[in-house]
Amino acid sequence: METLRIRAGGTTTPVVIGAGLLEAAGELVRDHLGAPTAAVVTDRTVGRLHGPALRRSLRAAGIRTAAWLEVAPGERSKSWPRTRALLDALAGARADRGTPVLALGGGMVGDLAGFAASLYMRGIPVVQIPTTVLAQVDSAVGGKTGINHVGVKNLVGTFHQPRLVVCDPAVLATLSDRDYRAGLAEAVKIGVTLRPDLLAVLENEASGLRDRDPRLLARVAAACLGAKGDLVGRDEKDEDVRAILNYGHTIGHALEASAWGRWRHGEAVAVGMNAAAWMGETLGVTSPEVRPRQNALLAGLGLKVTAPGADKRSIGRNLKLDKKVRGSSHRVVLTLQIGGASVWPRISRQLLRDAVRFIAS
Amino acid sequence: METLRIRAGGTTTPVVIGAGLLEAAGELVRDHLGAPTAAVVTDRTVGRLHGPALRRSLRAAGIRTAAWLEVAPGERSKSWPRTRALLDALAGARADRGTPVLALGGGMVGDLAGFAASLYMRGIPVVQIPTTVLAQVDSAVGGKTGINHVGVKNLVGTFHQPRLVVCDPAVLATLSDRDYRAGLAEAVKIGVTLRPDLLAVLENEASGLRDRDPRLLARVAAACLGAKGDLVGRDEKDEDVRAILNYGHTIGHALEASAWGRWRHGEAVAVGMNAAAWMGETLGVTSPEVRPRQNALLAGLGLKVTAPGADKRSIGRNLKLDKKVRGSSHRVVLTLQIGGASVWPRISRQLLRDAVRFIAS
Repeated sequence: METLRIRAGGTTTPVVIGAGLLEAAGELVRDHLGAPTAAVVTDRTVGRLHGPALRRSLRAAGIRTAAWLEVAPGERSKSWPRTRALLDALAGARADRGTPVLALGGGMVGDLAGFAASLYMRGIPVVQIPTTVLAQVDSAVGGKTGINHVGVKNLVGTFHQPRLVVCDPAVLATLSDRDYRAGLAEAVKIGVTLRPDLLAVLENEASGLRDRDPRLLARVAAACLGAKGDLVGRDEKDEDVRAILNYGHTIGHALEASAWGRWRHGEAVAVGMNAAAWMGETLGVTSPEVRPRQNALLAGLGLKVTAPGADKRSIGRNLKLDKKVRGSSHRVVLTLQIGGASVWPRISRQLLRDAVRFIAS
Repeated sequence: METLRIRAGGTTTPVVIGAGLLEAAGELVRDHLGAPTAAVVTDRTVGRLHGPALRRSLRAAGIRTAAWLEVAPGERSKSWPRTRALLDALAGARADRGTPVLALGGGMVGDLAGFAASLYMRGIPVVQIPTTVLAQVDSAVGGKTGINHVGVKNLVGTFHQPRLVVCDPAVLATLSDRDYRAGLAEAVKIGVTLRPDLLAVLENEASGLRDRDPRLLARVAAACLGAKGDLVGRDEKDEDVRAILNYGHTIGHALEASAWGRWRHGEAVAVGMNAAAWMGETLGVTSPEVRPRQNALLAGLGLKVTAPGADKRSIGRNLKLDKKVRGSSHRVVLTLQIGGASVWPRISRQLLRDAVRFIAS
């Protein structure tokens, strides 16, 4: 068991990482938050697989479950109706400012539960209990919450730091191969942009990754969440260095939004990382060693780096609503060399179009 | 013209106060935010009265109005549908993270516009241009945003500090007598709880208040916003001293919510202040000089301090959802003596019920 502490937005979030921790989640919530009751949000799949363990641990810790909300799996649950259902459940359970919302699930559940928790009475505590690779290496920390609006991913959201993160890599055993692999794209992103040592681990531990070795995954999660926590501590509101975490996300997001449900987030990010490296090469900014090494690792993990036949027009439309657009110029994260990335302002629309054509052909 | 600076939540908000400033709003937005475009939210009444002046000043400053949304006057516009309409308008106008939302109106418009602005792309700038007494002496600063949910006032909201506040007391000339008087209750609240000097001004300048003298109102606004800004700077998230601003609001809010639209917010707060002083007297906490002096001033301003015939059951139900409830005990702000208030934990339900009976009989 390892505990990181992430400081951001005036609060410190303990991030507890270790195989088997789900059974201790109730105890951790009690010790860190001291709340007599809690509300739980999960999706139906995760609820079936891991809900009983969480219920047991809450009961053992003497915490009453005031509300238990299960939403449909998938990005479509990041919606206004689900947000309102959760707020209704909190009001119905007479939740007060001290009642924590426990988000048991992947990035979708974390974003949705965090969003509703940030709004109810102008903010009640949220505890992230990530159950996917993506959430365990990335989205469970940092405090970004959000839902989709007018078809644009995360167009609406808040910053709301979790009060506690409980990360149990043993639960990743239940993921489908596809979801498991997709999540690793975010770990590769952290390795490429910030942590060459992590990149080497991912390259050298292929068999451990294949076998989902919980000790190895705990090490990967700690490296990723630590690196992310460092950026978030310096720039909670994503106005500066935190943007580095968006490597691969400019075109990745737009690709994902161009065909909801067809792409896993991590799959789209893998393609987006290829596009970002290609743009950097074209501009002479990205060292020529980056793209082959990054793409070889992604391919070795079973991830595609191109999207032949993707809808280029739809991707283009979605690019226009990217949150990093200011006026008419795009800001895109480029990797200069392995472990060194930077936000590049004023990327032309033409270069973005060329990059979309590059990955979609 | 006077400029206060309020520091809270990692940002400093300039608050510019002066008669006639509405005509300079565009210039102030340009100088402080440097945005080429802006979105405006107002209500139909305010839009008719003061919209043209704001349009003129934006045009003169070279700021393009990307969206102009008018909602129905009244508390019912603090709703999910209006929030979504505003978010749709922002998305439709291709607003980016640098596009400010200008809230031209009273507390309702400020809360709604601030709420939507805090959610769009996880937060875009909001500029408060308050046009009611309530907003000019209270709600325009502090960053609380919110809408009503399941009939509970401000059950849903965020903290989102404005980037600029433009306060023009000359616009108060267009208010109805009823709205004008109701807003003064919040100024009395600041005087009673924090600023004996302000209380004396309110007591001694009856004719100036009656005539809506802009210079006097600017002085009152500066005293109130300064006192509030001081508390907000020390406790943005309302976990501690900021709660003093809720004096009169425990029963006031519940009374207001017991019959939507019947009570102006300030009218309900005046009754709530009487109830709070009565509870404090009953507990032996509040000096006996407070209630007569406070109530005499409120009555002199034309405000009732009781609510004969109000729905006691409905008030009781709404009290249960008060945001200051933790578990089964209520926290209520009590004034010890003029200028000295404190949050009183563990107020019994019985005392609250008695206070409701006291003001409703």
